[in-house]
Amino acid sequence: MKILQISPPWIRVPPLGYGGIELVVGLLADELTNRGHDVTLMATGDSDTKAHLEYLFEEGETSKLGMTLYDAMQVSEAYKIADEFDIVHDHSGFLGVAFSHRLRSPMLHTLHGPFTADTSRFYEHFKDAAYYNAISEYQKSCLDGLNYVNTVYNAVDVEKFEYREEKDDYLILVSRVCPNKGTHLAIKVAKELGKKLILVGKIDPIDMDYFATQVEPEVDGEQIIFTGEVGDAEKRELLKKAACFVLPI
Amino acid sequence: MKILQISPPWIRVPPLGYGGIELVVGLLADELTNRGHDVTLMATGDSDTKAHLEYLFEEGETSKLGMTLYDAMQVSEAYKIADEFDIVHDHSGFLGVAFSHRLRSPMLHTLHGPFTADTSRFYEHFKDAAYYNAISEYQKSCLDGLNYVNTVYNAVDVEKFEYREEKDDYLILVSRVCPNKGTHLAIKVAKELGKKLILVGKIDPIDMDYFATQVEPEVDGEQIIFTGEVGDAEKRELLKKAACFVLPI
Repeated sequence: MKILQISPPWIRVPPLGYGGIELVVGLLADELTNRGHDVTLMATGDSDTKAHLEYLFEEGETSKLGMTLYDAMQVSEAYKIADEFDIVHDHSGFLGVAFSHRLRSPMLHTLHGPFTADTSRFYEHFKDAAYYNAISEYQKSCLDGLNYVNTVYNAVDVEKFEYREEKDDYLILVSRVCPNKGTHLAIKVAKELGKKLILVGKIDPIDMDYFATQVEPEVDGEQIIFTGEVGDAEKRELLKKAACFVLPI
Repeated sequence: MKILQISPPWIRVPPLGYGGIELVVGLLADELTNRGHDVTLMATGDSDTKAHLEYLFEEGETSKLGMTLYDAMQVSEAYKIADEFDIVHDHSGFLGVAFSHRLRSPMLHTLHGPFTADTSRFYEHFKDAAYYNAISEYQKSCLDGLNYVNTVYNAVDVEKFEYREEKDDYLILVSRVCPNKGTHLAIKVAKELGKKLILVGKIDPIDMDYFATQVEPEVDGEQIIFTGEVGDAEKRELLKKAACFVLPI
């Protein structure tokens, strides 16, 4: 099958640090190629994939994250070649779906984020414009009526995560630092249990206040440790030795 | 000629208060209709036009201004009918241009804003994706190489502006309150001349700090007067009696 995967323009595939969508897209493009499909990945020039790579931007435009015009350039570029494919699998924000009625190929859109009042309005309007892939049953339950084909959980390459029987005595949370992910709750849990906690993840500018008021005052470098964003290898090392992963969403 | 005009989803056509683009689009749609063209205007449901009105949103989605997904819904709706027209005249942000290669009809895009580093990158990439209409020679001189067809200044319905020989002794500035429009410079001019100044216009949330520090302290209700946003009739009345229009951009 000839498959086009459209990744956003902000971060390379796979990501070197933060980039949940890009991690999943990378695994998917590689594994579909492994299984004999003819996969093209529209991503950024610094990406590393087993699929055929197409790109407009040499590098991930991380500093432009969320700017419509970069999103438009990326998806437009994908649309130029989209008709050559049996299916277009879109992981971009909204533009892939919004203009899918101008494509000849069917589109599958993975819903990578939670539904808000605004995005619900959008997806309801475009409920039949694409096939939708939810990433959890909960997500699906938040908005009925979309043309869902399935719930496909985010892929994890389990082979890459080494198992270790013996654990160190700390808890870990790997996630963006923000209210939604409950960083402050993880700290509360650690304090109540009297356990060490390692917090791994980036802080978006919009969450700087939250970090400064709810997280940073608790970081003492002894019981509560904040590493910031770390690379893949270090992340796996920290996870391997952790006694428990805490994700209080 | 069958012409489709695409207006943004944020403000009705014509606007009741703020809305420079919507004012121009409204005049254009009406006058092209007057001249015998078959004009369809994609705008919002509360718009008032001589053209055939099409819309997705009942009212201007002003509170959502700038959100990609609303822009995408609006332009996508226009794209559904675009192939029926001899020409598509696009006044939307970036999406009309970005996906124009998927349309059968040629597109004319009016450049309604100044070029920034980001928008220049965008328009250079899409330099041949549409015919471009600059709104000033200066604007055109800021970015060479686009597929410009002409410079067409923003339309003004001069009949609507009554002339009065006798003037009152005040200066006026009608514009958004922001550094770009030089509201603070207009105040400086008025103070140096010892003249009364009436400031008319809205303040965007992003310019609230500017207003609070550079403008508000000077507003005394006597020499420097700030009216906020006013309707069309009141605006014309204020303009008619003003001794001088100050626009220190």
